[in-house]
Amino acid sequence: MERCRLVFSGSGGQGVITAAIILAESAVIYEGLVAVQSQSYGPEARGGATRSDIIISESEIFFPKVTQPNVLVCLTQEAYNKFYTIPRPGGILITDSHYVETWKKVDSRQIELPLYQSVIKEIGKPIVLNIAMLGAVIKITHLVKPESIMKTLETRINPEFLSMNQTALELGMNLAEDYAMEWIGGH
Amino acid sequence: MERCRLVFSGSGGQGVITAAIILAESAVIYEGLVAVQSQSYGPEARGGATRSDIIISESEIFFPKVTQPNVLVCLTQEAYNKFYTIPRPGGILITDSHYVETWKKVDSRQIELPLYQSVIKEIGKPIVLNIAMLGAVIKITHLVKPESIMKTLETRINPEFLSMNQTALELGMNLAEDYAMEWIGGH
Repeated sequence: MERCRLVFSGSGGQGVITAAIILAESAVIYEGLVAVQSQSYGPEARGGATRSDIIISESEIFFPKVTQPNVLVCLTQEAYNKFYTIPRPGGILITDSHYVETWKKVDSRQIELPLYQSVIKEIGKPIVLNIAMLGAVIKITHLVKPESIMKTLETRINPEFLSMNQTALELGMNLAEDYAMEWIGGH
Repeated sequence: MERCRLVFSGSGGQGVITAAIILAESAVIYEGLVAVQSQSYGPEARGGATRSDIIISESEIFFPKVTQPNVLVCLTQEAYNKFYTIPRPGGILITDSHYVETWKKVDSRQIELPLYQSVIKEIGKPIVLNIAMLGAVIKITHLVKPESIMKTLETRINPEFLSMNQTALELGMNLAEDYAMEWIGGH
């Protein structure tokens, strides 16, 4: 990985911005990388397709906006319909199979994961869906180690919720196990 | 206001990123504006000077990074020492008088506010310092209405904490009352 560009998309309440910030902080503070994380809100934000951009790099980042991500995550149908075309060729499109019905062939690798269903079944609360999503993303991309995510969570959340978040992270990693890639990112 | 660029800086635990996201969402969802909000983490992030950038505009924003803000807020000495030079001439530099000792003349208007002390005295918990800071910022700049901030908070936090946040917002607004400006921002 020289540089990896990611877009997390979904609805406001799903915590995609929080997940993006946690990933960026983990990469910078515990893995010695550089990161930029941003939200761009236009009129469409009022419609409900929240989008959060992250660039993780080994070297300085001059332009923080992501146009063609290496990794796109869509947690709602609306986000998928709006963004499915944006991954760069050879990139990855991760969708949640409960919220999103994929309907387009794209020039990226499509990975549908039952994140929501597994979180509901194993944990019972949708609130950690974003952490399960992060688990899938780091399993597939190897961007940061799960320990780094957990250390970041330790500084941010109430200790009583740590084990639920750890379970969610592992759930996402397990669901994505078969999709782990050798390499993701580019120049 | 055609376009206003802000930088909120402090330490990780002070909630400057959260405050930036709340301001951006309030402007977009309840005031019909456009906003970009970003965090840029370099090696200095490991040192502890967190920085969060916001651009609020009436028209589309092409470059999301803030170089010379109209408004800079510093909630720690380290953040002040690092960023005090960046406001554009005619801009505003807001510091917390408990955390920051100002020591440089700059080409911007310096406003020192006892945000921390007031929050501790009136509320007893430093956790809403960032919301008091937001109250001061919106009082000085008129960027968004306090009702818009409260509506955003309603979608984000537990109802039992709403009144504490409302108190903090008003506290910040009252402290900044004498500094309200006619106009802030530029092209």
